[in-house]
Amino acid sequence: MTAPGPPVPLLDRFRAGDPRALARAITLAESGMEGARPLLRAARERAGRAVVLGVTGSPGSGKSTLTDGLIAHLRGEGRRVAVLAVDPSSPYSGGAILGDRIRMLRWHADEGVFVRSLASRGALGGLSPRTLPVLALLEGAGFDWVILETVGVGQSEVDVAAVCDHTLLVLTPAGGDGVQAFKAGIMEIADVLAVNKADLPGADRTVRELRAAQGLGAHDAHTWFAPVLKTVASQGEGLAEVVEAVLAHRAHLGEEGLGERRERRAEFEVRTLVQDRVLRRARELSGDLYARVARGELDADAAADELLSGG
Amino acid sequence: MTAPGPPVPLLDRFRAGDPRALARAITLAESGMEGARPLLRAARERAGRAVVLGVTGSPGSGKSTLTDGLIAHLRGEGRRVAVLAVDPSSPYSGGAILGDRIRMLRWHADEGVFVRSLASRGALGGLSPRTLPVLALLEGAGFDWVILETVGVGQSEVDVAAVCDHTLLVLTPAGGDGVQAFKAGIMEIADVLAVNKADLPGADRTVRELRAAQGLGAHDAHTWFAPVLKTVASQGEGLAEVVEAVLAHRAHLGEEGLGERRERRAEFEVRTLVQDRVLRRARELSGDLYARVARGELDADAAADELLSGG
Repeated sequence: MTAPGPPVPLLDRFRAGDPRALARAITLAESGMEGARPLLRAARERAGRAVVLGVTGSPGSGKSTLTDGLIAHLRGEGRRVAVLAVDPSSPYSGGAILGDRIRMLRWHADEGVFVRSLASRGALGGLSPRTLPVLALLEGAGFDWVILETVGVGQSEVDVAAVCDHTLLVLTPAGGDGVQAFKAGIMEIADVLAVNKADLPGADRTVRELRAAQGLGAHDAHTWFAPVLKTVASQGEGLAEVVEAVLAHRAHLGEEGLGERRERRAEFEVRTLVQDRVLRRARELSGDLYARVARGELDADAAADELLSGG
Repeated sequence: MTAPGPPVPLLDRFRAGDPRALARAITLAESGMEGARPLLRAARERAGRAVVLGVTGSPGSGKSTLTDGLIAHLRGEGRRVAVLAVDPSSPYSGGAILGDRIRMLRWHADEGVFVRSLASRGALGGLSPRTLPVLALLEGAGFDWVILETVGVGQSEVDVAAVCDHTLLVLTPAGGDGVQAFKAGIMEIADVLAVNKADLPGADRTVRELRAAQGLGAHDAHTWFAPVLKTVASQGEGLAEVVEAVLAHRAHLGEEGLGERRERRAEFEVRTLVQDRVLRRARELSGDLYARVARGELDADAAADELLSGG
């Protein structure tokens, strides 16, 4: 029997690409532990190489199946892929978590795939403050692609577009999805549009409607028109084209555009942290701050000053 | 010719219920002017009597028509009604603003109705920081009902529920609206549900689905099950029942529950102000704060500290 050597520090194991070290780092970051800070710094120093893709779409659009198809396609090209699945929607729905577990089992044996799901919800309904550090860890862990998948509900889909390099919006031919997306203003967030389940009737019409709608927005010669692609994710159809379109958008952004997206991601993280702290500070302060505002005894502006000055 | 007396101060005219003074106060509050503060304090001292109802629903659900019908019904009962229409959605859509203008013309001659529309968007996609002061002014201006109408897109519908006493969610029988609302988790925000355009096929089925879905959530003997009502707003059908359901919810909340809602509204206002200031502070600070975080030179936590300490 050989005596075990001294334990290798977590930071070194993380730097060496040990998947268990990554999992541990994520757990630390998720719970907001101090111990995550050196790991996050190490991750950020190496960030900026991964393609950070957001995938969003309404419940039932098949975006999890599509993400799964992207994993398979990218693995076929030898790429290492990390997926962070976030479900900040209703506590009613538990389906996404189950699906993630099935997916995790499927890729369990492949060291080139890392899947993690977070079921947390931010204070304002969008991504929670802890999502961004986890994303940063994945970005710095040496994956070629990092996919952030979230159900397209409320604030979360706007948030996803704010924190990724590219956003893929998944729609279906059913029920005027295209027109709804246009009316609801979510087409603006998409860099690539996939009309999934394109073997259902109405797919061509949906594609036409989406393309027509794109022409209505303000645009000039430099405007990126999100490619509208047909996919049948369950059959693996159209996924190569999706990857191609994402890379075309990456070329369109260029180094400068990608730098801006990374900055926007950092801004989002800092701002959610600030929000989180203000919220905690408000809880620690005398409990009747808001009641005093509600009764007209205190200006809302004065209350905001009080929170920002630390009480 | 008699010499005009000295001008009556705005505050006195606002207190006396002069609609032009209210309009001026709203303009001041909307642009964040200091002059709005005494008016806001005066409004808050008298607040708490109005029924503050949020009306939200997807584009095309007919919520503007329904709001219009509610105005007509409430006027028939001698109630004074203010409507604040907010469209924080896509810059693509201009329809809501046009509709508001038509509505404003319709009620122009009736001193018991006040309509204002705001086309502003908050930093995080929801209600802008200036919506709440405007709401407070309307609440304190002596109206019996204050209706906040917003398109049900993203964060704005969650926000509306956070700032009103009661939330009316408007759906249609078309395209599985009910199931979508359930899946997307927005049913939770509704205190009253209207299946509008109930003369279209599928209305009864949608009502049944919504009622069935309600039973699935966690509930006990004190849970308020949002009444699911059929309306045909364009014909004025079902509006009396909607008003009745809102008042039933008001009775259910009681003085304590309404006090809590008013506090939540104040909390929301203070928090959006804090967010707004942090945003401004971040802009004033050396421009590369976020870039330094993106490059890994600065912790996101340290950046948040810097913003909160005033730099």
